[in-house]
Amino acid sequence: MNAPVNRQLRLARRPEGRVSLDDFVREEAPPPAAEEGAVVARTLFLSVDPTNRVWMKDVPQYMPPVAIGEVMRAGGLAEVVDSRLDGFAPGDLVFGMTGWQDYALLRPGGPLGLARIPAVSGLAPEKFLGVCGPNGVTAYAGMIDVAEIGEGDVAIVTAAAGSVGSAAGQIAKLKGARVVGIAGGPDKARALVDHYGFDAGVDYRAPDFRDQLKAATPDGADVLFENVGGAVMEAAIGRMNPRGRIALSGMISIYNGAGGTRYDWAPIMAKRLRVQGFNLIDCGEIWPRAARELASWVLEGKIRAEETIVDGLESAPEALNMLFDGANVGKLLVRL
Amino acid sequence: MNAPVNRQLRLARRPEGRVSLDDFVREEAPPPAAEEGAVVARTLFLSVDPTNRVWMKDVPQYMPPVAIGEVMRAGGLAEVVDSRLDGFAPGDLVFGMTGWQDYALLRPGGPLGLARIPAVSGLAPEKFLGVCGPNGVTAYAGMIDVAEIGEGDVAIVTAAAGSVGSAAGQIAKLKGARVVGIAGGPDKARALVDHYGFDAGVDYRAPDFRDQLKAATPDGADVLFENVGGAVMEAAIGRMNPRGRIALSGMISIYNGAGGTRYDWAPIMAKRLRVQGFNLIDCGEIWPRAARELASWVLEGKIRAEETIVDGLESAPEALNMLFDGANVGKLLVRL
Repeated sequence: MNAPVNRQLRLARRPEGRVSLDDFVREEAPPPAAEEGAVVARTLFLSVDPTNRVWMKDVPQYMPPVAIGEVMRAGGLAEVVDSRLDGFAPGDLVFGMTGWQDYALLRPGGPLGLARIPAVSGLAPEKFLGVCGPNGVTAYAGMIDVAEIGEGDVAIVTAAAGSVGSAAGQIAKLKGARVVGIAGGPDKARALVDHYGFDAGVDYRAPDFRDQLKAATPDGADVLFENVGGAVMEAAIGRMNPRGRIALSGMISIYNGAGGTRYDWAPIMAKRLRVQGFNLIDCGEIWPRAARELASWVLEGKIRAEETIVDGLESAPEALNMLFDGANVGKLLVRL
Repeated sequence: MNAPVNRQLRLARRPEGRVSLDDFVREEAPPPAAEEGAVVARTLFLSVDPTNRVWMKDVPQYMPPVAIGEVMRAGGLAEVVDSRLDGFAPGDLVFGMTGWQDYALLRPGGPLGLARIPAVSGLAPEKFLGVCGPNGVTAYAGMIDVAEIGEGDVAIVTAAAGSVGSAAGQIAKLKGARVVGIAGGPDKARALVDHYGFDAGVDYRAPDFRDQLKAATPDGADVLFENVGGAVMEAAIGRMNPRGRIALSGMISIYNGAGGTRYDWAPIMAKRLRVQGFNLIDCGEIWPRAARELASWVLEGKIRAEETIVDGLESAPEALNMLFDGANVGKLLVRL
C-alpha cells in the first residue's frame, strides 16, 4: 500500500476578481502527524462559501485573511483517521476547518474548530455541511435569533435560491411568515415558489425587478434576510416597513470587489430599522438547538435542501466562481 | 383688555440650506376655539430640534413634511387656557405639538399629541422640554433600551455637547460605562469632561481628530450613540468592537442637504454590528419610566443639563440655524 499523500492548495497570490487555479500552488506533503488534543482527519467534502473569497483578500474582516503560502482556509466534512483527543475515534465524522487539502490536523476551540457530526438515521452526512450545518445554522440564527421572525411577518430573502437563502425562507414559512424570495433568473425565481414553497419569487435580473418586488410586497416587509448587498439590497430596503429588522448575513455582491460598499443610511433612521450583522462564528450557542431542529425538519420533509457537488480538489477555485456566478443550486460542495 | 392674537409662522417655501424668516409667512389669527376632546394652550417655550429642519423638506421621513402654507410643526411647552378634555384644566402645563404659534389646539393621541407635565417640586418646567422631556427621553431610550449600555462598556457619543448627547453620555456614566464624547471645538470637548463628567472629549474639528479619537478609545468602543452621521460617524464606527451596538438617534450632518447619506455597510458585516434607528415617536412606552428617572437624577444632582433660551417667535428660524452651527449649549428653546 502506498503511503497516503496530502494534496494541498496554498494561496500563491491574492486574486483580483475571479479566482483561478493559478492563484494557488499545488503541493503534496505527508499527512500531518497526530498531536495531543487533536485529531487527524481525511477531508470528504469541502464547503464552498462566499467567505472563502473574502479570506483571500487582505482587507479588514472577521477573521485574519489567509496568508500567502498558507493552505486555503475552508470548512469541511472529514473522517477521523487518527485521534489523540478524548471522545474522538477513527471513523468518526467531524466538521472542522479542514482547508483545501486531503488531511488536516483539527483541534476543538476557535471558530468552528471541530464538531462531531451526529449519526442521524436516514440523513446523508453531507447534509451536515448544508442545511443541518453551517448554512442552515446561519439561516436559522438569522431568521429566528436575529430577525425574530414571527407569525404574520412579511419577510424578504435575497440570494434566496442559495443554500442559506432557501433555508432562511423555509424557516420563515415554518414560523408563520409570508416569504418573498429574490433570485437571479426566471427559473430560480419560479423554483422558490414551486420547489421551496415561498409565497413569491422575484428575478432581480428582470428589467421590471423593482415593480415585481413592489407587487410581491403590497404591505411592505418586516424582515429582510440579506445576503447580497448592492442594488438588490437597496431595493429590498425600499420595501421595509417602519421598525423592520434586517439580518445582514452577507453581501456577496461586494466580495469580488465589484461595486462599492457605501449604501444609504437614511432609511435606517427614517424607518427606524434595526440592521444586525451576524456570522456563524458568533453562533456557537445557537448551533446545537439549530442543528437539532433543522435535522428533524429535514427528516419530516418540512424543509427541502439540495447540494451541488463538484469533484476534485483542483476544482475548488472554479467552484468558488460558480457561487458568484449563481451557477449552483443549493449548497455547493467539493468532493475530494 | 385686547383680544388675544395668535401669531403664526407658516411655511412659505422649502428652504435650501440655512433657514430664514423669509421662508415663512407671518400671520395673525384669533386663537383657536376649544373643541370637544381637546385643549387650547398658550405656547410658553418652543423646542428647537434637528427634526424641525427635516420636516421642512419634501423627502421621505418618519412623519409627513410640513405642507406649504401650514404652521411650522414643533414641539412646545404650553399652558392650558381652555379645556374640553377630561383631566385637563386651565393653568395645567402640557407638552404637545404646538407649532410655531402662540396658541394651539391640542389633542391626545398621535406622536406626542399631548402629555401633561407633572409638577415636580424644585424643577423648572422648561426642564421638561429638555433633559426630562423629548431630548432626555431620546437619550435614555437610545442608551438604555436600544444600545443596552452596561457596566464596563465603552461608549462613544457624537454631538455630545448637545442636549441629547450630553444626557446620553451622563446616562452611560450612571450605568457604569466609560464615555468618550465628540463635539465641535476645543471648548466644547473640554466641557464634556469638566462639566458633564465624560472620561474624554474629542474635538472633531481638530486636524488630528482621528488620532485623538483612537487615543481616547484604546480598547475600542462597544456602543455608539450617533447624532451626526458623515465623517464623524464613520470615524466612530472605525473604533467599534465586534458585536458593538449603534443607537442611531439622528444624522444632523445630512439634514441640511450637505454631503450624502451613503456610508459604508462593510463594517456592519465585518464587525457584526447592530445598528438601530430609533425615534421619540416610538418611545411612548418608555417615556414615563424615563422622565421619572431623569427627573430624579436632575434633582439629586447626578445629571447636568443646560438650556439656551432665545426670545421671540420670529427668532425661531435663526434658532434652528444655531443648532446646525453648533452655537448652542444644551437644549435650545425659543421663549414666546
